[in-house]
Amino acid sequence: MQPPIELINYLKQNDDFSLIIHVNPDGDALGSMLGLGEALKSMGKRVTMYSRDGLPHHSQFLPHCETIIHGIPIEDKTTNLILIDCNESKRAGIEGIGYIKRIVVDHHLTEGDFGDIKWVVPSAAASGVLIYHIIKALGVEISLDIATNIYTAIAVDTGTFRYSNTKADTFDIAADLVRSGASPSYIAEQMYNKWSVERFNLLIKFLNSVEIYGDIAITCLTKEMIASTGAGPHDTEDIVNFSGMLESVKTSVFLKEADKDFWRGSIRSTKINAAEVAAKFGGGGHKNAAGFKATSEISQLKKDLLKYLTQE
Amino acid sequence: MQPPIELINYLKQNDDFSLIIHVNPDGDALGSMLGLGEALKSMGKRVTMYSRDGLPHHSQFLPHCETIIHGIPIEDKTTNLILIDCNESKRAGIEGIGYIKRIVVDHHLTEGDFGDIKWVVPSAAASGVLIYHIIKALGVEISLDIATNIYTAIAVDTGTFRYSNTKADTFDIAADLVRSGASPSYIAEQMYNKWSVERFNLLIKFLNSVEIYGDIAITCLTKEMIASTGAGPHDTEDIVNFSGMLESVKTSVFLKEADKDFWRGSIRSTKINAAEVAAKFGGGGHKNAAGFKATSEISQLKKDLLKYLTQE
Repeated sequence: MQPPIELINYLKQNDDFSLIIHVNPDGDALGSMLGLGEALKSMGKRVTMYSRDGLPHHSQFLPHCETIIHGIPIEDKTTNLILIDCNESKRAGIEGIGYIKRIVVDHHLTEGDFGDIKWVVPSAAASGVLIYHIIKALGVEISLDIATNIYTAIAVDTGTFRYSNTKADTFDIAADLVRSGASPSYIAEQMYNKWSVERFNLLIKFLNSVEIYGDIAITCLTKEMIASTGAGPHDTEDIVNFSGMLESVKTSVFLKEADKDFWRGSIRSTKINAAEVAAKFGGGGHKNAAGFKATSEISQLKKDLLKYLTQE
Repeated sequence: MQPPIELINYLKQNDDFSLIIHVNPDGDALGSMLGLGEALKSMGKRVTMYSRDGLPHHSQFLPHCETIIHGIPIEDKTTNLILIDCNESKRAGIEGIGYIKRIVVDHHLTEGDFGDIKWVVPSAAASGVLIYHIIKALGVEISLDIATNIYTAIAVDTGTFRYSNTKADTFDIAADLVRSGASPSYIAEQMYNKWSVERFNLLIKFLNSVEIYGDIAITCLTKEMIASTGAGPHDTEDIVNFSGMLESVKTSVFLKEADKDFWRGSIRSTKINAAEVAAKFGGGGHKNAAGFKATSEISQLKKDLLKYLTQE
């Protein structure tokens, strides 16, 4: 995988860069930005890094993360923007701000035409993969800190090499990053074993809410469950995936309380048409994954859901 | 990493092999045996594979696992033994059985002198790593099925690349196995998302039993919890590790009911001397990990434990 020569030349020939990632950043966004930022700094360039929403608790081990400005830049036409892990200004909260040039490095499907120099590769497992190739093309040596940041980026977006985006070249890059000092076990420890007691208690409440009817699982997360455990907004991430461990479950519905008797539902299925069930509640989506919003008392909502799910 | 030339020559020059693994086999033992077995068969050799304790439920996706004989061989001095993922006959349940030659391939610390040709490498992440190098040295092409078996062996013993035994060469091998057809996501799905409802319910009961006192967690698994969920003997594996997710916990004690008011305890700590606490209950071990047995009513046992744990 080779970055566009125009991108590499522009990075080499210019000296001032503002790096920005998407709102609610994850480890791929943060690790990618920090890895590229460190590489550009080592070339003597002025680099400023921004994250509108700061860093979630479990990303605070990333080397040099304390240099990230929590916020968005003010109008500044003396710097070049590098938008990482997203490809629209809105996703970074920086609509309407001017720059010399706007560079985009991302692995999500591109939708708009934002960016003067773009490298968007949806088949890449992580933005970290693209940043790795950029750093190699720049001829910068991968330091321990760069390796740790990029390894984390890739580990987060592949579920430490468990998701279907994990390819042979993902492992080639991981091997190289480990040779540059990245520690797989240290990083995994930071990613997975740093749960707060509040989040842990929310997981227990969530698991206790799982209801199984044959190959259907219905789970829910209420405002009361979140409030009573003292969990924060990031703490619901990943928790819903736990019901996916069950071999017998082909269809799962997750209900999240948005307001009193108002629920956001998401349906995932490998058996029935999720979109058709979601449509009964005025929602929609795809065959395997769909969503809806419903105003209903919870036990009635579950009854209605079960009726439609077993009819399909 | 190069296998001993004596081992490779012996495998090439002989035609009849009985492959055996340790009792209560895990994915490393099974995947390693199946990978080597398939490679030797492709060279035209007679191969018989044995597992005294059969296969756990979550290993039954391994290619050709149906060819494994559930049991131990009878006395047979016309075959060569290959003992995999252990290095003592007792660990495989085959004490006193005679063979032409006894070959040992293992990554555990060797204790006895069993074996005529041995390749024991404690620094290897998995026996699968050694089998990979043997197959390469034999000059056998790695088929999809061999790749799936060996990838699984390595994935199991490294926690899919999360444990500290994961090195750069582990990723090199993973990359090569993926190029030979192994699917990281399919294998991870089989390893982690095939929980039975019974096992899932046991996990919920276990998590509900977690008691946290500052940086101490006490967890327990009673016979009643196992019986009421209908969980089987393999179902307690991994479950105890869930309390390790907590960032604030430095010391954790797991109590498993062996009989009425009789408990097997294990203490893990990064803060206190686990061996000293275990010694108070007549047990012992290391600074970071120790064990004991205690005859006591559970609430009294927890009180006593907390007293010693907070004194240390």
